[in-house]
Amino acid sequence: MIVTVTPNAALDVTYTVDDLRRGDVHRVSDVRTRAGGKGVNVARVLHALGADVRAILTAGGATGTAVVDDLTAVGVAADVVPIGGETRRTTTVLAADGSVTLLNEPGPRLADGEWQALASAVRARSADVLVCSGSLPPGAGSYAELLGSSPSILDTSGDALLAGLAGRPSVVKPNADELREVTGLRDPVAAAAELRKAGAGAVVVSLGAEGLLAVTGSGTWHAAPSTVLSGNTTGAGDAVVAALALGLSRADPWPDILRRAVALSGAAVLGPLAGDVDLAHYQAEQGLVAVRAHLSRVRQP
Amino acid sequence: MIVTVTPNAALDVTYTVDDLRRGDVHRVSDVRTRAGGKGVNVARVLHALGADVRAILTAGGATGTAVVDDLTAVGVAADVVPIGGETRRTTTVLAADGSVTLLNEPGPRLADGEWQALASAVRARSADVLVCSGSLPPGAGSYAELLGSSPSILDTSGDALLAGLAGRPSVVKPNADELREVTGLRDPVAAAAELRKAGAGAVVVSLGAEGLLAVTGSGTWHAAPSTVLSGNTTGAGDAVVAALALGLSRADPWPDILRRAVALSGAAVLGPLAGDVDLAHYQAEQGLVAVRAHLSRVRQP
Repeated sequence: MIVTVTPNAALDVTYTVDDLRRGDVHRVSDVRTRAGGKGVNVARVLHALGADVRAILTAGGATGTAVVDDLTAVGVAADVVPIGGETRRTTTVLAADGSVTLLNEPGPRLADGEWQALASAVRARSADVLVCSGSLPPGAGSYAELLGSSPSILDTSGDALLAGLAGRPSVVKPNADELREVTGLRDPVAAAAELRKAGAGAVVVSLGAEGLLAVTGSGTWHAAPSTVLSGNTTGAGDAVVAALALGLSRADPWPDILRRAVALSGAAVLGPLAGDVDLAHYQAEQGLVAVRAHLSRVRQP
Repeated sequence: MIVTVTPNAALDVTYTVDDLRRGDVHRVSDVRTRAGGKGVNVARVLHALGADVRAILTAGGATGTAVVDDLTAVGVAADVVPIGGETRRTTTVLAADGSVTLLNEPGPRLADGEWQALASAVRARSADVLVCSGSLPPGAGSYAELLGSSPSILDTSGDALLAGLAGRPSVVKPNADELREVTGLRDPVAAAAELRKAGAGAVVVSLGAEGLLAVTGSGTWHAAPSTVLSGNTTGAGDAVVAALALGLSRADPWPDILRRAVALSGAAVLGPLAGDVDLAHYQAEQGLVAVRAHLSRVRQP
């Protein structure tokens, strides 16, 4: 079983407007709400692929109830850790020009004992692969406390990423900006090597439309999609993590894992909301992704 | 007692961000929620002034519960008409550059009987002044059905305004754009005369920073603030309506009513959220508002 952990779950609200203009009054023509937060999105994608997955998340207040109700409706198995604060909302504003604007609430502070309750819920499940995703709310401990001996993926940024490396995650998945921010290095291969030295087993860097760069103990690869897609990129990173989790659970070779991860990322861009994937694209694109071994250094003569 | 009616109440959410840029991801640094909708804001302002006021509103779902809880906490007396749909949210995004951007959800459709229940709730209260404010949700009837023989104020726009005139409201309060939209006339005095012919006793036009124009059965006046204020203009129109309601309840002369309305509108611009007023500004500004009789037509020789 794959277990995802979302310490700072959210109710994702998607607004459709004609245009978004600073200083104007906008009539929202369509409102959609669903359970969100990175780990919840990963679980939703894995559930859509028929994988055995369980989401562990915090939830509180009326917003938390809406999150749990949505997971129940979709059929994603979940362990909910109740919290005293009100679960945050994230609002995505889709405008007719194709722009995607996000407004992310910070989320409530965890009270005494709530982080420990989350850690207990994680320990109570024997995960084949553990996925820890997203920001940590105020009052949380470190992701390192959640990572055990099972294969694991850590998808977060900044201090939460750096502190989490002490737990020796099998894979971390920063994007290029997040990788540069935590290492101060512009070269992603050199930066990934730093994170491996600090505890990460492998580093998979998402490069947006250019695909993925994977720096692992058994080689370095670049995987590129066959075409550049336009759509809602919000859940693309979570789809990459879902594919990585599936690949780790089967102990697939890295080039196969990366091929599926790039294809699933594109399938998420084509999905209408974060956590949706276009399964036809996922199937068709897997054979078209170009995976090349990456030679990072020019040898000195 | 002044009674306000809000058929399409809302939970007002105010987000503070550094900047609002279309296509970007924004971290919201501050989230505030409160009961809203125009009639609720009018009641909140009147309550702050110590007036005897009661808000009648629809509320449904978790958002509706949050609206009612907030009114209870503030101490605004309310008659709540439960509805099956989920009360809408309106989101105001305040950016550091002073811009105010609104995202207004449309609100739920009223089910069979819910409009009738609202009308019964209005009839059950013997209002000295009845204030009907804001948009009508789908499934609603006409404001004309709510207006009885008591003095009344109708503050809405478009078809809801035009249809409401059949109920012969004592005062309607369009802004200049709304007035032009419903009459097709650019001259506000001529446009106001049209609305009076169609059933309005008086027309008070809000002109933004230029104050108010009142076209009444006993004269036409222009009331201008002493200074142009910058701040959150969202609740300024509701503050004008609150002052008009107070003036009607006391049968004050129009120049006095307008002086207070302009002062209270400025006090709302200085308040941090819609429905808040700066009482010191309200007191000080009343003596500074310039009210002049308005001579609208050049007599033909």
